[in-house]
Amino acid sequence: MDLKHYMERCRASVDKQLLSLLPSKDMRPEKLHQAMHYSVFAGGKRIRPILMIASCEAVGGDISQVLPTACAMEMIHTYSLIHDDLPAMDDDNFRRGIATNHKVFGEDTAILAGDALLTQAFITLSAATTPITIDKQTQVLNIIATASGAAGMVGGQVIDMEAEGDVVDLDTVNYIHSHKTGALILASIQCGALIGGADKKAFTALTSFGQDAGLAFQIADDILDIEGNQQQLGKDIGSDQQRGKATYPAVMGVEKSRQRMEQLQRQAMDKLIHFGDNAEALRQISQYIINRSS
Amino acid sequence: MDLKHYMERCRASVDKQLLSLLPSKDMRPEKLHQAMHYSVFAGGKRIRPILMIASCEAVGGDISQVLPTACAMEMIHTYSLIHDDLPAMDDDNFRRGIATNHKVFGEDTAILAGDALLTQAFITLSAATTPITIDKQTQVLNIIATASGAAGMVGGQVIDMEAEGDVVDLDTVNYIHSHKTGALILASIQCGALIGGADKKAFTALTSFGQDAGLAFQIADDILDIEGNQQQLGKDIGSDQQRGKATYPAVMGVEKSRQRMEQLQRQAMDKLIHFGDNAEALRQISQYIINRSS
Repeated sequence: MDLKHYMERCRASVDKQLLSLLPSKDMRPEKLHQAMHYSVFAGGKRIRPILMIASCEAVGGDISQVLPTACAMEMIHTYSLIHDDLPAMDDDNFRRGIATNHKVFGEDTAILAGDALLTQAFITLSAATTPITIDKQTQVLNIIATASGAAGMVGGQVIDMEAEGDVVDLDTVNYIHSHKTGALILASIQCGALIGGADKKAFTALTSFGQDAGLAFQIADDILDIEGNQQQLGKDIGSDQQRGKATYPAVMGVEKSRQRMEQLQRQAMDKLIHFGDNAEALRQISQYIINRSS
Repeated sequence: MDLKHYMERCRASVDKQLLSLLPSKDMRPEKLHQAMHYSVFAGGKRIRPILMIASCEAVGGDISQVLPTACAMEMIHTYSLIHDDLPAMDDDNFRRGIATNHKVFGEDTAILAGDALLTQAFITLSAATTPITIDKQTQVLNIIATASGAAGMVGGQVIDMEAEGDVVDLDTVNYIHSHKTGALILASIQCGALIGGADKKAFTALTSFGQDAGLAFQIADDILDIEGNQQQLGKDIGSDQQRGKATYPAVMGVEKSRQRMEQLQRQAMDKLIHFGDNAEALRQISQYIINRSS
């Protein structure tokens, strides 16, 4: 399997579907729609959609079944970045090398573009045209909403902000990682599994895989912030440290963080054994995300 | 029918259900949950939930069927108020006589509390415990999401901000009213009808009622901003005028606005004739909302 080719193919399908799911830029209110398009097509790697597609395929499903749900997930991820970058939050001027949404469209429109993208995700997930049965549709929507809200991503963001500058313990870092970023990663994998037709055993195995892999991804990200080069990263090296962000290296140092990451990676890979060749994409993508840091 | 008693009974049921649907204030992250509770229980009149309940009853349905959906609607309304009040938007320090969310919890938490409430609405709407069939659940969720997003409330808010200070035409005022506030009013009535078991004819009649009544409510609100007293209003008199907001009186004067409102009110009431006594609550509530201004 050619991973690069696989990821590019997924990304192209996701981008094409996203374009058809967003309101047209020429339609009123144009400024809002332009702001939505701007951040959705700002060079995102589509990690969550690709994980969802690969997870669907791991249980014998097909990309066409999962594509609208994968796009809804990307809309939610994008809204969270727009709101995170706001002056009242991380106050970032650049993301992936281009100006953040509020720098281009103003703070008011950026807030509303985020709100509209979050809502557009649920419009997409509840559309009558979705190629999955209606009971799966509701289940998937509930998983994604729960992962995105107060008990998931938003909750993690609040604790992350509160912890900034504090000396934090491992429990708090684990809470932040599993909620702020881990929740959407896990939900992506679970939704892929459900839509692809996973039985209870396969769903449990992929859930467990998603938990381990999600945390490994985040520790890799923490290490990359310290050791990566700026081009790889698209943001300043050491910016987490400067901000006093709660990270694994801040709590247990880089070397122990790397050991923990490798342990989680092995655990995660073990969970995929029973899926054989079907899980080859999921296996390779996970290795790829983790190995960016080493 | 004792309207005051009916509205109080609805409000009590909605408040009790809202409390059970929101994450507990004692649960981590406490600050986020406190901020969510603060604005949800800040003295809202629960107009949208009450309209949904009355609409459900107009077609022979029962309050218990519609209560979770009515609460989800109120969560979305509340999130929109939190975000509207932010410094980057209307920059309001008070709402209904108490400090706005960001004045109490900070701008970052207010943004996230709004995000979490919007998401909580969709968690509620997709919950397996909802007392409606799964196909109605998906339909209702799609109606509410569509009414809340770029083609509904958020779109209206963008055009409202853009129009501020401009000389606007009737088309623009109609766009703002039908989107910014009208969309959720209409969706409340439509969801009530659907959940209550409306046939196609009843659904169409109530949709038409909701369009006319929603616009009449908004014109009444515009007039109240000019002619009301501060106590009735809970905000400064003439604040729309001061801000150069796009309103009916600004376009066609108070007297013609009142004529248009009364015409819409008559049209709306005509749509309820076939529902007989079942629509008595819906009839009286609509009159009550409109008559605040005269």
